[in-house]
Amino acid sequence: MTSWLSIPKDSDFSLHNLPFGIFQPAGAPPRAGMAIGDHIVDLAAAAEAGLFGKRRFFKKIFEQPVLNDFIALGKPVTGRVRRKVQEWLTRPERPAEADRLLAERRGVAMQMPLRVPNYTDFYSSIEHATNVGKMFRPDNPLLPNWRWLPVGYHGRASSIVVSGTPIRRPMGQIVPKGEETPVYSASRQLDFELEVAFVIGKESALGEPIPAAKADDYIFGLLLFNDWSARDIQRWEYVPLGPFLGKNFGSSVSPWIVPLEALKPFRVKGPKQNPAPLEYLQTRGAQNYDIELEVSVRPENGPESVICRSNFKYLYWSMAQQLAHHTVNGCNVQVGDLMASGTISGPDAGSYGSLLELSWGGQKPLTLADGSTRTFLLDGDTLAIRGWAAKDGLRVGFGEVNGQILGK
Amino acid sequence: MTSWLSIPKDSDFSLHNLPFGIFQPAGAPPRAGMAIGDHIVDLAAAAEAGLFGKRRFFKKIFEQPVLNDFIALGKPVTGRVRRKVQEWLTRPERPAEADRLLAERRGVAMQMPLRVPNYTDFYSSIEHATNVGKMFRPDNPLLPNWRWLPVGYHGRASSIVVSGTPIRRPMGQIVPKGEETPVYSASRQLDFELEVAFVIGKESALGEPIPAAKADDYIFGLLLFNDWSARDIQRWEYVPLGPFLGKNFGSSVSPWIVPLEALKPFRVKGPKQNPAPLEYLQTRGAQNYDIELEVSVRPENGPESVICRSNFKYLYWSMAQQLAHHTVNGCNVQVGDLMASGTISGPDAGSYGSLLELSWGGQKPLTLADGSTRTFLLDGDTLAIRGWAAKDGLRVGFGEVNGQILGK
Repeated sequence: MTSWLSIPKDSDFSLHNLPFGIFQPAGAPPRAGMAIGDHIVDLAAAAEAGLFGKRRFFKKIFEQPVLNDFIALGKPVTGRVRRKVQEWLTRPERPAEADRLLAERRGVAMQMPLRVPNYTDFYSSIEHATNVGKMFRPDNPLLPNWRWLPVGYHGRASSIVVSGTPIRRPMGQIVPKGEETPVYSASRQLDFELEVAFVIGKESALGEPIPAAKADDYIFGLLLFNDWSARDIQRWEYVPLGPFLGKNFGSSVSPWIVPLEALKPFRVKGPKQNPAPLEYLQTRGAQNYDIELEVSVRPENGPESVICRSNFKYLYWSMAQQLAHHTVNGCNVQVGDLMASGTISGPDAGSYGSLLELSWGGQKPLTLADGSTRTFLLDGDTLAIRGWAAKDGLRVGFGEVNGQILGK
Repeated sequence: MTSWLSIPKDSDFSLHNLPFGIFQPAGAPPRAGMAIGDHIVDLAAAAEAGLFGKRRFFKKIFEQPVLNDFIALGKPVTGRVRRKVQEWLTRPERPAEADRLLAERRGVAMQMPLRVPNYTDFYSSIEHATNVGKMFRPDNPLLPNWRWLPVGYHGRASSIVVSGTPIRRPMGQIVPKGEETPVYSASRQLDFELEVAFVIGKESALGEPIPAAKADDYIFGLLLFNDWSARDIQRWEYVPLGPFLGKNFGSSVSPWIVPLEALKPFRVKGPKQNPAPLEYLQTRGAQNYDIELEVSVRPENGPESVICRSNFKYLYWSMAQQLAHHTVNGCNVQVGDLMASGTISGPDAGSYGSLLELSWGGQKPLTLADGSTRTFLLDGDTLAIRGWAAKDGLRVGFGEVNGQILGK
């Protein structure tokens, strides 16, 4: 498959990927686009040019400031739009309308691609759960329920922002070391969490569980997710009802939603599960995805340092199991809902997906390329997560999600 | 203040109340209404009749299927609409257009009044937190953070339904008594939680806390809230990240949103707080509301029994403190967000706001009017919560929120 458009060989946004996002061309309102190499296909312009039929209908859909209504059309339609663009990009000659339909990606402001009606965060990496457990409960790191169900909780939807949005260091109650009562302070333990989230593409009815075997029908696509965490605020507040202000000051997503079908070639088996899950959590075939993940920190005016390399395939609980569990009680899902994986840590220390683990609770500072050290994030630091799948010359990437820490 | 319309003296929906809701007249699409006595003022029809000026603008606003856009107009506008309707209802003579603007409440289907972008549940009754704590942690009922901050967590917005919607008994993982591993089962400990929720009427920006002194500007109104809970599912899942499937199969709200200004005469001081809260949680004046609450159970084909009488004024943490805490880290709020109080238990056993407490973990079954007993809810039971404030001849009520339990 080749295109008349020049697509860099190592681009995340290959002809096999074709992810959806919302971009804002200079002087125009936000609209839907598809990333291809160093360009964006303006889907509203493509609709107007007749690429998908029903010109007015699709133009209106793609001129919305979020992708929810488009995604709600269902996979037969969203899949057809991808194929039509792929056909257009692989025509024998550059089409006359190419200039009108293409924008350069560089310098274009990407927007939050979704209105997120509900956001759930799981805790599905056994390495992460064990690491955190060891620090807080040395005798009993993994709680009794962990191997029986994909532990999860509801997060805050309103404060999810797109990559590039600065994150203000949160104020809150923290208990200084050696003391027993809290003080009002800026967080001193600001952390990231390396996660991947899936986007719900089809709503379900209240009272009707989604079987694990049908999960793929409900998963539109994936994006990178940074669940910023203030560990000191979280530690004081989280018993007994879970994380709240330690998390809800902001979460960041990558701007391009990679459709599930683009990731099919990268499906792999997940870790063996022991004990065997209850029947409603049993799945067949390869349910995990081999997606390389990388995290870097860049101090203000300093060079970038990669601090973690992990992989989405390490997750103990798959997305199909997460979704089956989430709805087994009849809880309904809505188009645009995000379900994040929880921190994706791997088996070795270089693959831990949070500073809490990388610095082992602050005991082992990391040394960055400029010689400075980190236990947690400093003001001015930019944290970036990148992700891509690559195999047999195919490459399907996510780009990145980044955010800079602003002081109070 | 008297009306040409006959308003029953004991009605929740007095001339001082004028709550907003969404109703569906026979053969017409849903629209906004205001409850008055046994009637509903059709606000779209009132707009068309010119009651508020800008006929087309207000007609369109009131023809929406939820109140979010109306509420977002702000208190000066929503307050003026209430005053205009109040003036209309207290004209010296019945207006010629009265028949066109009024519908009988009886038999009219009420709808979910809001799209809820985010839902938060607090845990602000010291009696409830202490009771639950005693059952699960006899030596240490109230956790160290409880008196320092209004503990809360994020709930599921998608499964919030309006009064009258049946609730299906959830399936899930429970650990039978005396065993250590879970089974897949219908919940055997289905419970209610007596709560009051407030509706956010004004959005805030990410990164900008709402001071406690400004909280009233952001609180549009209140409604009754039942946070249905499956105690057996919750017990197994909730450590360490909080309640999830034990709660998110459904929450019910009363259909009429009582504006905060209607409740002003019922403001009272809350319990003394010890230790003194940190500065950002300090408030002046009366911050609680004297609202009587009552819970009843009606078995299928049986008579109703009142099982709890409590009061919103018992809450240790006020709504102003909840909102100030929720946003102290910069978390933003959106119009239509619901923030529920947590179970409102009072000091004596007849005022406990959940069956968990009323039956003391199932040890003390309640006897109902038909002679049957309950530890938790049975299939066919209808649970109703009612609430009203009354003083010096003024009455401002919420009506009720009810739901019947359906078996699996």
